[in-house]
Amino acid sequence: MEETFAPFRGIKGDLKGRLMCYKQDWSGGLNAGFRILAPTTYIFFASAIPVISFGEQLERDTEGVLTAVQTLASTALCGTIHSMIGGQPLLIVGVAEPTVIMYMFMFNFAKSRSDLGSKLFLAWTGWVCMWTSILLFLMAILGACSIINRFTRLAGELFGLLIAMLFMQQAIKGMIDEFRIPKRSNPGLPEFEPSWRFGNGMFALVLSFGLLLTALRSRKARSWRYGSGCLRGFVADYGVPLMVLLWTAVSYIPTESIPKGIPRRLFSPNPWSPGAYENWTVIKAWLDMLNVPVLYIIGAWVPATMIAVLYYFDHSVASQLAQQKEFNLRKPPSFHYDLLLLGFMVLLCGLLGIPPSNGVIPQSPMHTKSLATLKHELLRSRLVATARSCMRKHASLGQVYGSLQEAYQQMQTPLTYQESSSRGLRELKESTILSVSSMGNINAPVDETIFDIEKEIDDLLPIEVKEQRVSNLLQSMMVGGCVAAMPFLKKIPTSVLWGYFAFMAIESLPGNQFWERILLLFTAPSRRYKVLEERHATYVETVPFKTIAVFTLFQTAYLLVCFGTTWVPLAGVLFPLMIMLLVPVRQYILPKFFKGAHLQDLDAAEYEEVPPLPFDLATEEEVGSTASLAEDGEFLDKIVTRSRGEIRRICSPKVMSSTATPTKELKSLQSPRFPHRVYSPQVFGRGTFSPRPGQANPFNLSKSG
Amino acid sequence: MEETFAPFRGIKGDLKGRLMCYKQDWSGGLNAGFRILAPTTYIFFASAIPVISFGEQLERDTEGVLTAVQTLASTALCGTIHSMIGGQPLLIVGVAEPTVIMYMFMFNFAKSRSDLGSKLFLAWTGWVCMWTSILLFLMAILGACSIINRFTRLAGELFGLLIAMLFMQQAIKGMIDEFRIPKRSNPGLPEFEPSWRFGNGMFALVLSFGLLLTALRSRKARSWRYGSGCLRGFVADYGVPLMVLLWTAVSYIPTESIPKGIPRRLFSPNPWSPGAYENWTVIKAWLDMLNVPVLYIIGAWVPATMIAVLYYFDHSVASQLAQQKEFNLRKPPSFHYDLLLLGFMVLLCGLLGIPPSNGVIPQSPMHTKSLATLKHELLRSRLVATARSCMRKHASLGQVYGSLQEAYQQMQTPLTYQESSSRGLRELKESTILSVSSMGNINAPVDETIFDIEKEIDDLLPIEVKEQRVSNLLQSMMVGGCVAAMPFLKKIPTSVLWGYFAFMAIESLPGNQFWERILLLFTAPSRRYKVLEERHATYVETVPFKTIAVFTLFQTAYLLVCFGTTWVPLAGVLFPLMIMLLVPVRQYILPKFFKGAHLQDLDAAEYEEVPPLPFDLATEEEVGSTASLAEDGEFLDKIVTRSRGEIRRICSPKVMSSTATPTKELKSLQSPRFPHRVYSPQVFGRGTFSPRPGQANPFNLSKSG
Repeated sequence: MEETFAPFRGIKGDLKGRLMCYKQDWSGGLNAGFRILAPTTYIFFASAIPVISFGEQLERDTEGVLTAVQTLASTALCGTIHSMIGGQPLLIVGVAEPTVIMYMFMFNFAKSRSDLGSKLFLAWTGWVCMWTSILLFLMAILGACSIINRFTRLAGELFGLLIAMLFMQQAIKGMIDEFRIPKRSNPGLPEFEPSWRFGNGMFALVLSFGLLLTALRSRKARSWRYGSGCLRGFVADYGVPLMVLLWTAVSYIPTESIPKGIPRRLFSPNPWSPGAYENWTVIKAWLDMLNVPVLYIIGAWVPATMIAVLYYFDHSVASQLAQQKEFNLRKPPSFHYDLLLLGFMVLLCGLLGIPPSNGVIPQSPMHTKSLATLKHELLRSRLVATARSCMRKHASLGQVYGSLQEAYQQMQTPLTYQESSSRGLRELKESTILSVSSMGNINAPVDETIFDIEKEIDDLLPIEVKEQRVSNLLQSMMVGGCVAAMPFLKKIPTSVLWGYFAFMAIESLPGNQFWERILLLFTAPSRRYKVLEERHATYVETVPFKTIAVFTLFQTAYLLVCFGTTWVPLAGVLFPLMIMLLVPVRQYILPKFFKGAHLQDLDAAEYEEVPPLPFDLATEEEVGSTASLAEDGEFLDKIVTRSRGEIRRICSPKVMSSTATPTKELKSLQSPRFPHRVYSPQVFGRGTFSPRPGQANPFNLSKSG
Repeated sequence: MEETFAPFRGIKGDLKGRLMCYKQDWSGGLNAGFRILAPTTYIFFASAIPVISFGEQLERDTEGVLTAVQTLASTALCGTIHSMIGGQPLLIVGVAEPTVIMYMFMFNFAKSRSDLGSKLFLAWTGWVCMWTSILLFLMAILGACSIINRFTRLAGELFGLLIAMLFMQQAIKGMIDEFRIPKRSNPGLPEFEPSWRFGNGMFALVLSFGLLLTALRSRKARSWRYGSGCLRGFVADYGVPLMVLLWTAVSYIPTESIPKGIPRRLFSPNPWSPGAYENWTVIKAWLDMLNVPVLYIIGAWVPATMIAVLYYFDHSVASQLAQQKEFNLRKPPSFHYDLLLLGFMVLLCGLLGIPPSNGVIPQSPMHTKSLATLKHELLRSRLVATARSCMRKHASLGQVYGSLQEAYQQMQTPLTYQESSSRGLRELKESTILSVSSMGNINAPVDETIFDIEKEIDDLLPIEVKEQRVSNLLQSMMVGGCVAAMPFLKKIPTSVLWGYFAFMAIESLPGNQFWERILLLFTAPSRRYKVLEERHATYVETVPFKTIAVFTLFQTAYLLVCFGTTWVPLAGVLFPLMIMLLVPVRQYILPKFFKGAHLQDLDAAEYEEVPPLPFDLATEEEVGSTASLAEDGEFLDKIVTRSRGEIRRICSPKVMSSTATPTKELKSLQSPRFPHRVYSPQVFGRGTFSPRPGQANPFNLSKSG
């Protein structure tokens, strides 16, 4: 992305790019069939549960003026708008913690002013939102998002880890509160006696750890050894919601002689109860707006500026993290236009008297990851079927690869058709044929003993993401449905919520290179090569360990300072400013302490890289919902959901645009490297024929061919 | 072992065999130095914790006549005697659950008779023990243990799994009881109010699951990626005791406003308190023996017969499971003599008025496994040091293997010196040299890029067990020390005990082929080959899946019947009879339903096999406590502690005694098998040069050598 500050140019560019693939955004999603429900449900829970919890927090802090009903409504409304007319449909919007904190401060301020009071609070926030939206419009029009490229991996991953820490902090705080008497409760109730509080706290520990451990396990179900492929796939896709159900059911087991309030459950109001009329009268706030004294209307610029800065950063970084280059996205980003749309949505929420939504972390990258899993499953089942049918016809290895390549091309989102239609398969085919021909049986029919279909195809497939709008729209509508389902949601114990918060924090860690480098510091030197084997983290090879350590320690210190900042009362909301400060630090200060090449490996800034390729539109042919469920997706687990770090760099734009010919690729395959020293992805992860232990002398195979 | 029923022949043979290696039993143990403490501590906990728990059970059931002090005293006394003058020092003895149940029935009987009463109970049990010991003497002298060979894997593993189920049942029962008011307690105490009971139960869940999960994790510490090798080794060796300490400490965290009785802790009497004089007056029971009415002295034959049958079976099977052929033991078994000694120990315990001990499962096989780990560590550190020093001198691969072989020979327990001193290394050396020479650099100096020392040596080492008496003696003395340390032991929460019971049940599962076959039934067909890769379970290859399934289902049904039997009040104690019934079933009925070859693979009966080789004595030269701590023991984890199933059959007597020459071995290495079809251990686990993924064409290596 060029850095251009000419008015409207960014928005125009975004619109042009996204309009070209708008139709495919819908058709691609619909083509996936019922399977789109897996990422949808996954992200719906990740989106709704924190929003409900933030709603509960708002309810306590605003004395019931705002509740979970409003936060859910805002998330559903903005999510629906964004998924339909937004730029980047991978971006998930919702009411986030900083918004909640800002609203809390604003409420306390309003309450303390006699001429404003809690009555005019919503009207005043209407003004705040109006000024915020004006600021967002200005930023979007003037191209403020152009500098998003300066937010390198350093800043993005630090922000991601900070959010994970905040989620974990919330989980721990919530757990501790289970032992205490909650605010706004009658301490005379039997369940608040010390004995029952102790029991409640311990029960909460059981429920939250139960949820956390089982949810983490279920995500890895694809690599389980037991159960059929269907079952494993189902558990991996829907395990987290299932576990929330399961542990909610467990919470109802101890009934006899236990007070009704144990374990504690969600407190949100029932929007269908007769007394809940207020929940639906938010629109009157709009009429009150004119009653707000002028002084406060002007004063609203102060919180508005803070919120605008916050949203500008949050929204853009969430979008950026959802579009990391490891995901090999085909469709263009849309930072400027999305910021403009965010302005409209903030205005709308302000007028409706509900807290506004913005792009959220870690849900947005979680969304992309789950769509990568989906795409992989779709591709995989088609290719496995193709290979199987070929081999039934006793095709030779060359023929099998030919068919695979054809099938793969058919399934490509053909936006980049001309340049790289077969990029995922070509080099592999060549090198495999080479190694097979060295055994002298290139034209012999292959059977499964030589060609392990599933393994080969897993090795062939690059990471690709099912980029579409359906999952985002559906999950937004499901969040909206939560408002209706509030009576059911209230059955969920709060402790399950805390377990879920911890789960989200942990789920956001793998693939975060900063986190992996922290772990590397604690790895025994003799085992560092394992990091290479698993994650293809090239920096471990190219950068001296000391440099990695110093860089990581600097980043960790910075992270802790940021985390400390969040504890400072009001200024804490602006911790994103701390992270924006990283941009000049990275650009001007770090290069003085680290070598350029090392910085490039540890934290590739886009301004040091080749820009992505242009794209063009065509129709998509893709295997639909009729594709048989892939039997085996273990590889996927490891690659897509666990280690999206540096994997498959071969497919990143940088390599795509290079002039590497297959011959060159092959040369690197023959490079004089030894087993445990081989980690470049070209050679390593894609070594053909996948020798397993015991195959000491592959050339002996020719005797048996 | 021959089946001979000539009087005394079995005992003589046992004594002759064990006397030959008696001196080495001590010197070998002492040579291992401080490292012997790792298996000692491990087995001490596994031995002491159930004994304490059974003591608590006895205390409740015998109204305090027998307590944990007596069970510990019996275990310590018998353990010390057995470790010093017993035959098989790998066998662990202790007071077991069946003994406790028998004593409970006997107490209830005695109490119900006015002319016996609880006063003469211990005197009466003295008579029971006397008749039991006479029966045991007779069985030992007449060679009843000769038929132990008829207890095949089928019976042994079924018994092992049954014991695991009983342990797990105890853990679950104990956990449920944490929510209830314990017997013999004052229900008016504050901690027995419903609210506190709920809190206590939930806290118990947290503590026991905490212990279970962390203990299981800590056992795998050697394969952790983080932390130094020292730390990992320490955690793997001592993790379980550490976790008991840790969770006991955690149980003290909630102090404020919690009644003293939460969480519940061990109840055992303090043998040092002034009122505990009775604990030390057991010997008076001896004097009372003459006061027992003659009718009861004769009637004592009934329980005595039951106990004798039980002990005969338990003791022999525990000893057999501790000496499974996968462990490649060098020293001879000693079933007859051990049964004779057991008779003496039963008599002694009876006269002392303490419950007798016998061989216990799963502690005995756990003991052998932990000693295999020790031996592996010792061997490994010596060989790694040898290889390193060779390579520093720029030796060629041939020279390195020469030195390794020499070092290995030096460290052999030289009981089988003549036949197989170099069996662990020779074939490997030859085949590696072959594959290296094909690259043309056989005489070139090797460096670590070609020869990954630690990996190679892990591949070379067969499973061997450090057979000695020191660990058994030390652990028995430590159990004795528990009596003195009772005031400290009482700080352990009962819930930690239940967690430990569950841990023992789970720890006894890996390596049990019956259990692995049950898992195989639930394994997706496409993943069954993974079982082969990991466990070298040849039967998966040689026996049709349907046959495996039918065999396993039969065994499972039999197991469930046995488990059901244990619930029948008095007869339940005799469930071992059910398992003895398996002998004729296996020998006469099963062959009618299954093919001989399949039965041989699923359940190799010794009577269908070649007998083990004779042995002879020599002195042992072994690396002592000065050996540096091995840096990396991950392989070990997988092989020794997790999958002792069919691994390294190449080293079992059967193969040893075959006439296979190295040439023949090499041929099988070159056999026309393909990567994922190769599972024979000769080819698989010992494939030299250990190609890793990415090394597609090893012959290219010559370009770089």
